Amino acid sequence: MAKKGKLAIGVDLGGTSLYAAVVDTETGQIYGQAKRKARAELGAVGVTKRVVKTVERAILRSGVKRKRLIGVGVGVPGPIDAEGGLVIRLTNLGPTWDGFPLAQTLERRLKLPVVIENDVNVGAVGEHCFGAGRGASDMVALFVGTGLGGGVILDGKLRTGFRGSAGEVGHMLLRADGDPCGCGEHGHAEAYASRTAIERSIRKAIAAGEPSMLAETIEVEGRPLLTSKYIQRAYEAGDAVAVNAIRSAQYYLGLLIADCVNLLDPEAVVVGGGVLERMGDAYLEPVRGYARQHFLNKHAMETVRIVAAELGDSSGAVGAAVQAVRRLTDGA
Amino acid sequence: MAKKGKLAIGVDLGGTSLYAAVVDTETGQIYGQAKRKARAELGAVGVTKRVVKTVERAILRSGVKRKRLIGVGVGVPGPIDAEGGLVIRLTNLGPTWDGFPLAQTLERRLKLPVVIENDVNVGAVGEHCFGAGRGASDMVALFVGTGLGGGVILDGKLRTGFRGSAGEVGHMLLRADGDPCGCGEHGHAEAYASRTAIERSIRKAIAAGEPSMLAETIEVEGRPLLTSKYIQRAYEAGDAVAVNAIRSAQYYLGLLIADCVNLLDPEAVVVGGGVLERMGDAYLEPVRGYARQHFLNKHAMETVRIVAAELGDSSGAVGAAVQAVRRLTDGA
Repeated sequence: MAKKGKLAIGVDLGGTSLYAAVVDTETGQIYGQAKRKARAELGAVGVTKRVVKTVERAILRSGVKRKRLIGVGVGVPGPIDAEGGLVIRLTNLGPTWDGFPLAQTLERRLKLPVVIENDVNVGAVGEHCFGAGRGASDMVALFVGTGLGGGVILDGKLRTGFRGSAGEVGHMLLRADGDPCGCGEHGHAEAYASRTAIERSIRKAIAAGEPSMLAETIEVEGRPLLTSKYIQRAYEAGDAVAVNAIRSAQYYLGLLIADCVNLLDPEAVVVGGGVLERMGDAYLEPVRGYARQHFLNKHAMETVRIVAAELGDSSGAVGAAVQAVRRLTDGA
Repeated sequence: MAKKGKLAIGVDLGGTSLYAAVVDTETGQIYGQAKRKARAELGAVGVTKRVVKTVERAILRSGVKRKRLIGVGVGVPGPIDAEGGLVIRLTNLGPTWDGFPLAQTLERRLKLPVVIENDVNVGAVGEHCFGAGRGASDMVALFVGTGLGGGVILDGKLRTGFRGSAGEVGHMLLRADGDPCGCGEHGHAEAYASRTAIERSIRKAIAAGEPSMLAETIEVEGRPLLTSKYIQRAYEAGDAVAVNAIRSAQYYLGLLIADCVNLLDPEAVVVGGGVLERMGDAYLEPVRGYARQHFLNKHAMETVRIVAAELGDSSGAVGAAVQAVRRLTDGA
């Protein structure tokens, strides 16, 4: 293989697993990758050691010489201080991460420059460079999973905002004084369009006595079994509770997309995350209709591309590698 | 006076009046200005002739030689095709404007290059260059009047979007399936936070029999007298109907600002328009509180500047002149 492009390592630091890949940031090609459990209980220092091992293994597997690597980009599941290389807080990984100097700690161990960024933001970069957003100058990415996150790309560059907290689409308001959101407020998109919202609707309907094939899988001996797989199966079987819950989430996702389009008028909106990966473009078709109804510029109806993400799990690591090269070589 | 800066003419083409000013686009200083009634009933051709006369008078009054002028920028109250110099539609000015080649028509008569842009977008540019948004790299402007419009400035430049329709903040959703909006849809910000929304609340409360000092001024012999002046007076006197209507509009304006902050994380949010000009910063104080409650990044509480516009009526013309110079000299 001719490894000619600008090579960097992209890391996806998740609550349950760590993933590292050596990425050709000009083609998106992955030369070597490694994955391990995050083991969040080890705390910031312990997990960071595991990140180092994962990165070393990816380098080894790639066969790329260390001196060819421009640096390491890490996508972190929470707010960060990119300038200072600090994690601000990772709710799902525990309090030892508050203010943790992740970039410096990794730099000392890896002997490579390290750039950190929010995981959803780098996911947007990945999809923009090599996924569903290819060629779009302005793009908004939305990732629908347990939560709902997003990233904004304008003129081909990630917008991180004045305080590094742009793209918090999950906390845009869709129903004033509405359902409670994980953040403590009410009526936000995440409370209506995330996987958690779908699950909540199903539980509520079943608790209210609505018949559903999901009633029995809700909990078995205290272990919740309301997995995405079961929900999808019920939806496809036409189970009314599942269908209603998903329709509602699609409706609100459409409204959220309309908000982004009315404010920024992007060329493309890319939708990814667990829910989309499982159900694919079929999930998006009704969403497009709901969104278009609220576009002020009706011309946007034909021209805004609302498309499913293409890179799946790897968008974060690929985007993190790209973002690292951009920041290390031209300060973007 | 030393007129050394880049000089251009800015025009504000409104439904009721036309305003033109010779503007030093480096300082914001106005050297000569003229105003006349729009007389919308004359149609696109007739009103354009009046624009020409208004511009000629402003040039004459400024004492600036024609060859010193880089061009003319026109702020138009509706969607435009900036590239083609075409008006798309001006709902308040009648159907003769549909597809009207405003830029070319003015160029032929004025013998100067003409740039057209949406009026609210150029208002944002004006406030950014010489008003309340001075020095902010990223800024969102919201103008609260009969309608609710906005403009987005990032890295100091106006973002017009892929189809030229960015900044349509009035049609961002705040309450799914809520009150009807002028655009035909439901639940948009304009239906809750505009002057029209305030008026509608008041009429509704009075129709429901709530006592109010505004009850008698609602209509006199078919002529509506529910003016901003009366509403403000009632509000200041503590009239419950006026207070509730304004509180509600302030609440929703706060939610809209939170949406913009959560998506774009700008340095400043500038709020202008008729309602703000009349009531000033006092109007914004509760708005700030409502907005902050929904910021995901609570640090933004201290650091996002939410400020009242400073240029009043002239922001559009000043911004149009600046935008004309930018587009004519560096294609921005």
